[in-house]
Amino acid sequence: MPFPLLSMVLTAACVAAEPAPRTTPVLRHIVLYKFKDTTTPAQIDEVSAAFKALPGKIPGIVGFEAGTNVSPEGKSEGFTHAFVVSFATEKDRDAYIVHPAHQDFVKVVKDRCEKVIVVDFWVK
Amino acid sequence: MPFPLLSMVLTAACVAAEPAPRTTPVLRHIVLYKFKDTTTPAQIDEVSAAFKALPGKIPGIVGFEAGTNVSPEGKSEGFTHAFVVSFATEKDRDAYIVHPAHQDFVKVVKDRCEKVIVVDFWVK
Repeated sequence: MPFPLLSMVLTAACVAAEPAPRTTPVLRHIVLYKFKDTTTPAQIDEVSAAFKALPGKIPGIVGFEAGTNVSPEGKSEGFTHAFVVSFATEKDRDAYIVHPAHQDFVKVVKDRCEKVIVVDFWVK
Repeated sequence: MPFPLLSMVLTAACVAAEPAPRTTPVLRHIVLYKFKDTTTPAQIDEVSAAFKALPGKIPGIVGFEAGTNVSPEGKSEGFTHAFVVSFATEKDRDAYIVHPAHQDFVKVVKDRCEKVIVVDFWVK
């Protein structure tokens, strides 16, 4: 096979293998926590670690991100910790909510946070 | 070139072209809105459209997602609209905040929302 032709074959094959723009919708589940003044840094770390362990315990989680607020805008309303859990379907999200591992996690965080906000939205 | 060899070359070339796991950190900028009771659906749509136009006007935005709350948990605290803008650096996020197009957008949303929450966090 002459090299120009090989080159064309390689190019065509690899274009097909390149990451295509995401065509399947994803359900983002945003969770923000404002902790009580009485909650210690160690207890907050424990909550973060317990949340981060959930993807290893619950099926159907297709993405997981977590971090602490670094916004300079002063509009966080005391919410310091953000978690974004992603699902392919609402059924997976619903199964996550009632999963025993999630319920155990809720028991850990429940009395330590002053406020929680949960907002889910579809990215299509 | 015999076909088995061509196949090996194609395979090797295409494996290299597959998307690698993200190794560079990304800064997520979460914005949640709770609109005033007096804000009309048309005015809310206008806010969403204006926000969604920002990636076309402001450089340094490497990701943009937006949607309306579909959580069944009842913990959204009245926040109905979520936006997640992503940046590669804090410098890009800072430039976005002070960009005239963003400032113009803030003027549109300012009197229409009752509450806004902004939380930024690094995904590393």
